[in-house]
Amino acid sequence: MSSEFVLFFGFSVILGYFVFWSCLHLGLRWGFYPKRIREFYDDQWKAHVPLSGGLGFLLIGLLLYLRFRHPALLIALLSGLVGLADDVTKTLRQGHGMKARYKILLLVLVSLCFFSFGYGATRVAWSFIVLLATTSATNFTDGADGLLGSVLVPVFLVLPQSGVTGALLGSLISYLFFNASPARLFMGDTGSLFFGGFLASFMLLRGQEWWLILLCLIGVIEVASVVMQVVYFRLTGGKRIFRMTPIHHHFQKLGWSDPRIVTLFTGMQAVACTLCWVGWNWPW
Amino acid sequence: MSSEFVLFFGFSVILGYFVFWSCLHLGLRWGFYPKRIREFYDDQWKAHVPLSGGLGFLLIGLLLYLRFRHPALLIALLSGLVGLADDVTKTLRQGHGMKARYKILLLVLVSLCFFSFGYGATRVAWSFIVLLATTSATNFTDGADGLLGSVLVPVFLVLPQSGVTGALLGSLISYLFFNASPARLFMGDTGSLFFGGFLASFMLLRGQEWWLILLCLIGVIEVASVVMQVVYFRLTGGKRIFRMTPIHHHFQKLGWSDPRIVTLFTGMQAVACTLCWVGWNWPW
Repeated sequence: MSSEFVLFFGFSVILGYFVFWSCLHLGLRWGFYPKRIREFYDDQWKAHVPLSGGLGFLLIGLLLYLRFRHPALLIALLSGLVGLADDVTKTLRQGHGMKARYKILLLVLVSLCFFSFGYGATRVAWSFIVLLATTSATNFTDGADGLLGSVLVPVFLVLPQSGVTGALLGSLISYLFFNASPARLFMGDTGSLFFGGFLASFMLLRGQEWWLILLCLIGVIEVASVVMQVVYFRLTGGKRIFRMTPIHHHFQKLGWSDPRIVTLFTGMQAVACTLCWVGWNWPW
Repeated sequence: MSSEFVLFFGFSVILGYFVFWSCLHLGLRWGFYPKRIREFYDDQWKAHVPLSGGLGFLLIGLLLYLRFRHPALLIALLSGLVGLADDVTKTLRQGHGMKARYKILLLVLVSLCFFSFGYGATRVAWSFIVLLATTSATNFTDGADGLLGSVLVPVFLVLPQSGVTGALLGSLISYLFFNASPARLFMGDTGSLFFGGFLASFMLLRGQEWWLILLCLIGVIEVASVVMQVVYFRLTGGKRIFRMTPIHHHFQKLGWSDPRIVTLFTGMQAVACTLCWVGWNWPW
């Protein structure tokens, strides 16, 4: 392991406890939780869990950007701000969340930053598609206590090691303490779009965006489960494949505990990350 | 990361799901669960969770020994057998478990294998003390769902990477799926003594046994909490520092969920492992 990776990791874990503890208490004070929980949700207590964890990732991301100036962090921060706009609308009185078309429009604006990478118009358009797909993948994965945070751990272990990836991995570890089942803090769309934006632009910069299918395998499965459910529902006029999608809700409905779902999905993602590592490092 | 480490990791995760699934079902069929749960235990359902997970680690350890002939695996397997003897007595009708003096005697016999490392009598005696301390540390840590398995993950990430450490890390990931809260499978003393024996002899072979204090920091804290509790109880004639020891029970009594305890302890161990890595790799 690279020494910068390890040092930033350890420092970030310790710093993270203070950051997310502050996020938790500020979120409680501000009443930063969604005003509407979907009707069919069994867990009404989740209506009083603040969404402010994502602010912690934005702060850590900003500090890292000031230190390392990694362009992927810029896209990550901007994507996180798009998520923040969504989270804020959810916490307002109406609590409807932002309409999908506005979210996509904002992500189009974020994608304009890809021009600053020296990309042409076609590659910027393609980058937008990758960004939209990856942020959707992370966004759909975030839905069971500790799920997205744990699934990202093997991802950040196999990514090329640097201070940035080490610090983000460390922040995930301390975030998970507050997000472990039963969650006291969520990262919200702010956090999931931050990580989606980071992974998308990190891999785009390396010209390896197709690897995101394996690197975000759980997210791909989650999105696929939703698409399959909707298509099947329409074709059959009302039948369902899964009890509920994204697919982690299916397992919840089967009576699985959140930690059991998290360990299964993280294990699967770890195997997928192994394949990524082999693909990137094999001498061929 | 070393390629042998990664390959054995990925393979071991997949193999592990089959191994521990078999352990679970054989354990259920054999009735391999403790016949007595301590009276003050709130969780009586744990009386019907099989202890047979350790058998899976013994099997994986044996396969690894046949492949790599790593001497630390030999000590680990023998320590695991000592734990198995304890587990078996717990599952018998009386269910008292083995007396401590017999367990220590068996570990003395295991320590005789250190002569085969070419050690003199003093170093063998010292190795026994290290083995006893480390197996106690892992044994005391194993007591909340998913705790020991998760705490060992950062340990195996910072140990010098080889096929052996990769495969053991992989087996922990798949074990955790069955051990996640609420646990369906325990590793028992078989598993905890296996890992204690492995870590003790691995570090002894490297002449770095003092690093075990950091590398098993959570175990050291768990043992220290018990010692402090007992000493304080005797000195004050009945007062307690913690509600219950080992200290993870204290947090359970405070109402913390097992996943929250696991994420906190794993995070602390991850920081301790960072310090180990820095100590081993820093150029001084």
